[in-house]
Amino acid sequence: MRIDHVAIAVNNVEEALKTFEKVLKVDRKQIMVVEHEKVKLAMLQLEDTRIELLEPLTDDSPIKKFLQERGEGIHHISICTDTLEQDVENASRNGVRIIGGIRPGSYGRKITFIHPKSMHGVLMELCEPHPVA
Amino acid sequence: MRIDHVAIAVNNVEEALKTFEKVLKVDRKQIMVVEHEKVKLAMLQLEDTRIELLEPLTDDSPIKKFLQERGEGIHHISICTDTLEQDVENASRNGVRIIGGIRPGSYGRKITFIHPKSMHGVLMELCEPHPVA
Repeated sequence: MRIDHVAIAVNNVEEALKTFEKVLKVDRKQIMVVEHEKVKLAMLQLEDTRIELLEPLTDDSPIKKFLQERGEGIHHISICTDTLEQDVENASRNGVRIIGGIRPGSYGRKITFIHPKSMHGVLMELCEPHPVA
Repeated sequence: MRIDHVAIAVNNVEEALKTFEKVLKVDRKQIMVVEHEKVKLAMLQLEDTRIELLEPLTDDSPIKKFLQERGEGIHHISICTDTLEQDVENASRNGVRIIGGIRPGSYGRKITFIHPKSMHGVLMELCEPHPVA
Protein backbone atom coordinates (compact mmCIF):
# COMPACT_ATOMS: atom_id res chain seq x y z
CA MET A 1 0.00 0.00 0.00
CA ARG A 2 1.12 3.51 -0.80
CA ILE A 3 -0.27 6.95 -1.53
CA ASP A 4 -1.48 6.96 -5.12
CA HIS A 5 -2.86 10.48 -5.30
CA VAL A 6 -4.37 13.37 -3.41
CA ALA A 7 -7.54 14.84 -4.89
CA ILE A 8 -8.40 18.52 -4.67
CA ALA A 9 -11.84 19.99 -5.30
CA VAL A 10 -11.62 23.12 -7.46
CA ASN A 11 -14.08 25.39 -9.23
CA ASN A 12 -12.24 25.28 -12.55
CA VAL A 13 -9.67 22.67 -13.53
CA GLU A 14 -7.83 24.82 -16.10
CA GLU A 15 -7.47 27.76 -13.70
CA ALA A 16 -6.27 25.52 -10.86
CA LEU A 17 -3.80 23.80 -13.18
CA LYS A 18 -2.17 27.15 -13.93
CA THR A 19 -1.74 27.77 -10.20
CA PHE A 20 -0.38 24.33 -9.36
CA GLU A 21 2.13 24.56 -12.20
CA LYS A 22 3.56 27.70 -10.59
CA VAL A 23 4.78 25.44 -7.78
CA LEU A 24 4.95 21.86 -9.01
CA LYS A 25 7.18 20.28 -11.61
CA VAL A 26 4.55 18.19 -13.34
CA ASP A 27 6.04 15.28 -15.31
CA ARG A 28 2.92 14.96 -17.46
CA LYS A 29 -0.73 15.84 -17.22
CA GLN A 30 -4.05 14.70 -18.59
CA ILE A 31 -7.50 16.28 -18.49
CA MET A 32 -10.47 13.93 -18.71
CA VAL A 33 -14.15 13.60 -17.92
CA VAL A 34 -15.44 10.77 -15.71
CA GLU A 35 -19.16 10.92 -16.49
CA HIS A 36 -20.36 8.42 -13.90
CA GLU A 37 -18.53 10.28 -11.11
CA LYS A 38 -19.82 13.62 -12.52
CA VAL A 39 -16.37 15.20 -12.59
CA LYS A 40 -13.89 16.73 -14.97
CA LEU A 41 -10.41 16.01 -13.70
CA ALA A 42 -6.82 16.95 -14.32
CA MET A 43 -4.28 14.30 -13.35
CA LEU A 44 -0.86 15.80 -12.62
CA GLN A 45 1.88 13.18 -12.55
CA LEU A 46 4.63 13.82 -9.97
CA GLU A 47 7.11 10.97 -10.47
CA ASP A 48 5.16 7.90 -9.26
CA THR A 49 2.45 9.88 -7.42
CA ARG A 50 -0.31 12.14 -8.66
CA ILE A 51 -2.35 15.21 -7.78
CA GLU A 52 -5.92 15.08 -9.06
CA LEU A 53 -7.86 18.30 -9.57
CA LEU A 54 -11.62 17.71 -9.52
CA GLU A 55 -14.22 20.03 -11.00
CA PRO A 56 -17.94 19.22 -10.75
CA LEU A 57 -19.61 18.43 -14.07
CA THR A 58 -23.16 18.87 -12.78
CA ASP A 59 -25.02 20.57 -9.95
CA ASP A 60 -25.71 17.21 -8.30
CA SER A 61 -22.03 16.18 -8.36
CA PRO A 62 -20.66 15.34 -4.89
CA ILE A 63 -17.78 17.74 -5.68
CA LYS A 64 -20.29 20.56 -6.19
CA LYS A 65 -21.73 19.87 -2.74
CA PHE A 66 -18.24 19.81 -1.21
CA LEU A 67 -17.36 23.16 -2.82
CA GLN A 68 -20.59 24.74 -1.63
CA GLU A 69 -20.07 23.55 1.94
CA ARG A 70 -16.30 23.87 2.37
CA GLY A 71 -14.89 25.74 -0.61
CA GLU A 72 -11.89 24.61 -2.64
CA GLY A 73 -9.45 22.29 -0.88
CA ILE A 74 -8.27 18.73 -0.37
CA HIS A 75 -11.15 16.36 -1.06
CA HIS A 76 -9.70 12.89 -0.53
CA ILE A 77 -6.53 10.84 -0.31
CA SER A 78 -6.16 7.72 -2.37
CA ILE A 79 -4.20 4.65 -1.28
CA CYS A 80 -3.45 1.95 -3.84
CA THR A 81 -3.15 -1.70 -3.04
CA ASP A 82 -2.55 -4.94 -4.96
CA THR A 83 -5.17 -6.71 -2.85
CA LEU A 84 -8.15 -4.37 -3.01
CA GLU A 85 -10.99 -6.86 -2.44
CA GLN A 86 -9.23 -8.47 0.51
CA ASP A 87 -8.33 -5.12 2.11
CA VAL A 88 -11.87 -3.78 1.75
CA GLU A 89 -13.29 -6.97 3.26
CA ASN A 90 -10.80 -6.74 6.10
CA ALA A 91 -11.56 -3.06 6.81
CA SER A 92 -15.27 -3.77 6.70
CA ARG A 93 -14.90 -6.66 9.17
CA ASN A 94 -13.02 -4.24 11.47
CA GLY A 95 -16.10 -1.99 11.57
CA VAL A 96 -14.89 0.53 8.98
CA ARG A 97 -17.71 1.98 6.86
CA ILE A 98 -17.30 1.50 3.09
CA ILE A 99 -19.22 3.84 0.77
CA GLY A 100 -20.96 2.18 -2.14
CA GLY A 101 -18.78 -0.91 -2.67
CA ILE A 102 -16.06 -1.54 -5.23
CA ARG A 103 -16.62 0.11 -8.63
CA PRO A 104 -14.69 1.38 -11.67
CA GLY A 105 -12.90 4.74 -11.33
CA SER A 106 -10.66 6.68 -13.71
CA TYR A 107 -8.41 4.58 -16.00
CA GLY A 108 -10.81 1.65 -15.38
CA ARG A 109 -9.19 0.91 -12.04
CA LYS A 110 -11.35 -0.57 -9.32
CA ILE A 111 -11.91 1.84 -6.44
CA THR A 112 -13.94 2.29 -3.29
CA PHE A 113 -14.22 4.91 -0.55
CA ILE A 114 -14.10 4.80 3.23
CA HIS A 115 -16.46 7.11 5.08
CA PRO A 116 -14.77 10.06 6.86
CA LYS A 117 -16.70 9.16 10.03
CA SER A 118 -14.70 5.92 10.15
CA MET A 119 -11.35 7.64 9.46
CA HIS A 120 -11.02 10.71 11.70
CA GLY A 121 -12.59 13.06 9.17
CA VAL A 122 -10.62 11.74 6.19
CA LEU A 123 -12.35 10.62 2.99
CA MET A 124 -10.05 7.81 1.88
CA GLU A 125 -10.15 6.08 -1.48
CA LEU A 126 -8.71 2.61 -1.87
CA CYS A 127 -7.76 1.72 -5.43
CA GLU A 128 -5.87 -0.70 -7.61
CA PRO A 129 -2.36 0.45 -8.56
CA HIS A 130 -2.17 2.98 -11.37
CA PRO A 131 -1.27 1.51 -14.80
CA VAL A 132 1.43 4.17 -15.29
CA ALA A 133 2.63 4.24 -11.66
CA MET B 1 8.90 16.27 -7.12
CA ARG B 2 6.53 13.73 -5.62
CA ILE B 3 4.06 13.34 -2.78
CA ASP B 4 6.06 12.70 0.38
CA HIS B 5 3.22 12.51 2.88
CA VAL B 6 -0.28 13.57 3.75
CA ALA B 7 -0.77 14.99 7.24
CA ILE B 8 -3.95 14.49 9.22
CA ALA B 9 -4.93 16.50 12.29
CA VAL B 10 -6.26 14.24 15.05
CA ASN B 11 -7.21 14.66 18.69
CA ASN B 12 -5.14 11.70 19.87
CA VAL B 13 -2.35 10.06 17.90
CA GLU B 14 -2.56 6.64 19.59
CA GLU B 15 -6.32 6.39 19.06
CA ALA B 16 -6.07 7.47 15.43
CA LEU B 17 -3.23 5.03 14.83
CA LYS B 18 -5.49 2.16 15.91
CA THR B 19 -8.12 3.26 13.38
CA PHE B 20 -5.70 3.76 10.49
CA GLU B 21 -4.18 0.33 11.10
CA LYS B 22 -7.59 -1.23 10.60
CA VAL B 23 -7.31 -0.17 6.95
CA LEU B 24 -3.66 0.41 6.09
CA LYS B 25 -0.80 -2.04 5.89
CA VAL B 26 1.80 0.08 7.63
CA ASP B 27 5.36 -1.00 6.82
CA ARG B 28 6.74 0.71 9.94
CA LYS B 29 5.74 3.51 12.26
CA GLN B 30 7.32 6.00 14.58
CA ILE B 31 5.81 8.32 17.18
CA MET B 32 7.75 11.49 17.98
CA VAL B 33 7.43 14.97 19.39
CA VAL B 34 8.42 18.04 17.33
CA GLU B 35 8.60 20.69 20.07
CA HIS B 36 9.12 23.73 17.84
CA GLU B 37 6.07 22.81 15.74
CA LYS B 38 4.09 22.04 18.94
CA VAL B 39 2.97 18.64 17.73
CA LYS B 40 3.16 15.00 18.63
CA LEU B 41 3.19 12.97 15.45
CA ALA B 42 2.92 9.41 14.25
CA MET B 43 4.65 8.70 10.94
CA LEU B 44 3.14 5.69 9.14
CA GLN B 45 5.34 4.41 6.37
CA LEU B 46 3.47 3.08 3.30
CA GLU B 47 6.18 1.84 0.96
CA ASP B 48 7.93 5.08 -0.15
CA THR B 49 5.14 7.42 1.02
CA ARG B 50 3.88 8.32 4.48
CA ILE B 51 0.78 9.29 6.41
CA GLU B 52 1.48 11.70 9.27
CA LEU B 53 -0.95 11.92 12.18
CA LEU B 54 -0.64 15.23 14.03
CA GLU B 55 -1.81 15.87 17.58
CA PRO B 56 -1.44 19.32 19.16
CA LEU B 57 1.04 19.47 22.04
CA THR B 58 -0.18 22.81 23.38
CA ASP B 59 -3.27 25.01 23.27
CA ASP B 60 -1.48 27.50 21.03
CA SER B 61 -0.47 24.82 18.50
CA PRO B 62 -1.71 25.56 14.95
CA ILE B 63 -3.10 22.00 14.93
CA LYS B 64 -5.22 22.81 17.99
CA LYS B 65 -6.69 25.80 16.14
CA PHE B 66 -7.38 23.66 13.06
CA LEU B 67 -9.17 21.02 15.18
CA GLN B 68 -11.27 23.65 16.91
CA GLU B 69 -12.31 25.25 13.62
CA ARG B 70 -12.66 22.25 11.32
CA GLY B 71 -12.44 19.09 13.42
CA GLU B 72 -10.25 16.10 12.57
CA GLY B 73 -9.24 15.72 8.93
CA ILE B 74 -6.58 16.24 6.30
CA HIS B 75 -4.35 19.14 7.35
CA HIS B 76 -1.75 19.41 4.59
CA ILE B 77 -0.07 17.65 1.71
CA SER B 78 3.69 17.51 1.50
CA ILE B 79 5.66 17.48 -1.75
CA CYS B 80 9.36 16.67 -1.63
CA THR B 81 11.93 18.08 -4.00
CA ASP B 82 15.69 17.88 -4.47
CA THR B 83 15.84 21.59 -5.21
CA LEU B 84 13.89 23.14 -2.35
CA GLU B 85 15.50 26.60 -2.24
CA GLN B 86 15.19 27.05 -6.00
CA ASP B 87 11.57 25.85 -6.11
CA VAL B 88 10.55 28.12 -3.24
CA GLU B 89 12.23 31.09 -4.88
CA ASN B 90 10.53 30.26 -8.16
CA ALA B 91 7.07 29.89 -6.57
CA SER B 92 7.56 33.13 -4.67
CA ARG B 93 8.54 34.95 -7.88
CA ASN B 94 5.32 33.60 -9.44
CA GLY B 95 3.30 35.36 -6.74
CA VAL B 96 2.75 32.32 -4.53
CA ARG B 97 2.64 33.16 -0.82
CA ILE B 98 5.22 31.29 1.31
CA ILE B 99 4.53 30.99 5.06
CA GLY B 100 7.51 31.71 7.31
CA GLY B 101 10.42 30.78 5.02
CA ILE B 102 12.51 27.61 4.95
CA ARG B 103 13.07 25.96 8.35
CA PRO B 104 13.84 22.55 9.91
CA GLY B 105 10.96 20.05 10.17
CA SER B 106 10.84 16.45 11.41
CA TYR B 107 13.95 14.33 10.72
CA GLY B 108 15.92 17.61 10.37
CA ARG B 109 14.66 18.03 6.81
CA LYS B 110 14.25 21.57 5.52
CA ILE B 111 10.59 22.47 4.95
CA THR B 112 8.35 25.39 4.14
CA PHE B 113 4.63 25.93 3.59
CA ILE B 114 2.56 27.57 0.89
CA HIS B 115 -0.48 29.52 2.00
CA PRO B 116 -3.85 27.89 1.15
CA LYS B 117 -4.99 31.22 -0.31
CA SER B 118 -2.33 30.77 -3.01
CA MET B 119 -3.21 27.11 -3.67
CA HIS B 120 -7.00 26.77 -4.02
CA GLY B 121 -7.54 26.07 -0.33
CA VAL B 122 -4.67 23.57 -0.01
CA LEU B 123 -2.01 23.96 2.67
CA MET B 124 1.03 22.58 0.85
CA GLU B 125 4.35 21.76 2.44
CA LEU B 126 7.49 21.63 0.31
CA CYS B 127 10.29 19.57 1.82
CA GLU B 128 13.59 17.89 1.15
CA PRO B 129 13.33 14.18 0.31
CA HIS B 130 12.86 11.87 3.28
CA PRO B 131 16.05 10.12 4.46
CA VAL B 132 14.30 6.73 4.45
CA ALA B 133 12.21 7.34 1.30
